[in-house]
Amino acid sequence: MPSIGPKSAQRLAMYLLRSPEQRSLALGRAILDLRQGVNFCQQCWNLAESDPCSICDNPARDRGMVCVVEEVLDTLAVENTGQFGGVYHVLHGALSPINGVGPDQLKMRALFERVAGGGISELIIATNPSLEGEATALYIQRGLLEAGNGVKVTRIARGLPVGGDLEYADAITLGRAMKDRTELGN
Amino acid sequence: MPSIGPKSAQRLAMYLLRSPEQRSLALGRAILDLRQGVNFCQQCWNLAESDPCSICDNPARDRGMVCVVEEVLDTLAVENTGQFGGVYHVLHGALSPINGVGPDQLKMRALFERVAGGGISELIIATNPSLEGEATALYIQRGLLEAGNGVKVTRIARGLPVGGDLEYADAITLGRAMKDRTELGN
Repeated sequence: MPSIGPKSAQRLAMYLLRSPEQRSLALGRAILDLRQGVNFCQQCWNLAESDPCSICDNPARDRGMVCVVEEVLDTLAVENTGQFGGVYHVLHGALSPINGVGPDQLKMRALFERVAGGGISELIIATNPSLEGEATALYIQRGLLEAGNGVKVTRIARGLPVGGDLEYADAITLGRAMKDRTELGN
Repeated sequence: MPSIGPKSAQRLAMYLLRSPEQRSLALGRAILDLRQGVNFCQQCWNLAESDPCSICDNPARDRGMVCVVEEVLDTLAVENTGQFGGVYHVLHGALSPINGVGPDQLKMRALFERVAGGGISELIIATNPSLEGEATALYIQRGLLEAGNGVKVTRIARGLPVGGDLEYADAITLGRAMKDRTELGN
């Protein structure tokens, strides 16, 4: 298991042996429940205890605005901004031909079917600003263009992090920030 | 002098004493020339050996596009992106009332006069994405709005750095990246 090597495993096992029996029984049951209680939401493919998940099922959220992210943890990152009132679509990865990850390994067909199902006005592609994330964003944009659903496709801004400094920004990010400059409203 | 304490100063002095006389003479002359040879360009207020500087004087650069930066080093950062073909305006700081820096301590009037002089189509405000930088950008935008020159004012994008990861982005930057999202061209 990640971050637990043989030594840590021994230490944990000894701890459980020494601690009251109830504690190890409780942990064992919790791990058993883990796979039974948690499932994927069949709409957004986020981890959820119910289907649809609490976000998809929330009537206060705008179902017409879908934020596409790579991983489950990314939905938490976007939720923490407190600025997004729509729903999600978790791809469970990004396109990476070198690592054998194609569209079929991701929840890509589910996304296209979801868009084809209608009711979506804007797709915000929030894959990582990395090589794989950008390729995935491009793939989605092209696919939707071919399908011709007329859905607005947007990409989160790449630029200087808030609180950053021009002098220490890398040239590619600063170049992108110059290119993606926004007009200040009059 | 910054990063040279008493010990380093001693070491440097000993080095100069031990090295050939020509070397210390050359260094001394170079330091003498420093303040005589380098001046501020009276158009963009960048450090330059000539007036106007080599950027303002370059016929290949678009004089209608002015990038406003805080410091001289910021012009180098923008130049390194290789994506900017306009000219600069160096403010020599950012508004910071707490530190007693108002518009009069900056090359702010020079900027407004330069815009009023005409010939500028777009002002790209590339002050830092910090509190002071944002306040300075707002001040410039308001000032130009009042003057009513009709110059397009843009701001460099704030968002996720290229190569970054959603999961590790701070909430304010990610929120800004969501807000400033760009539409993917069809």
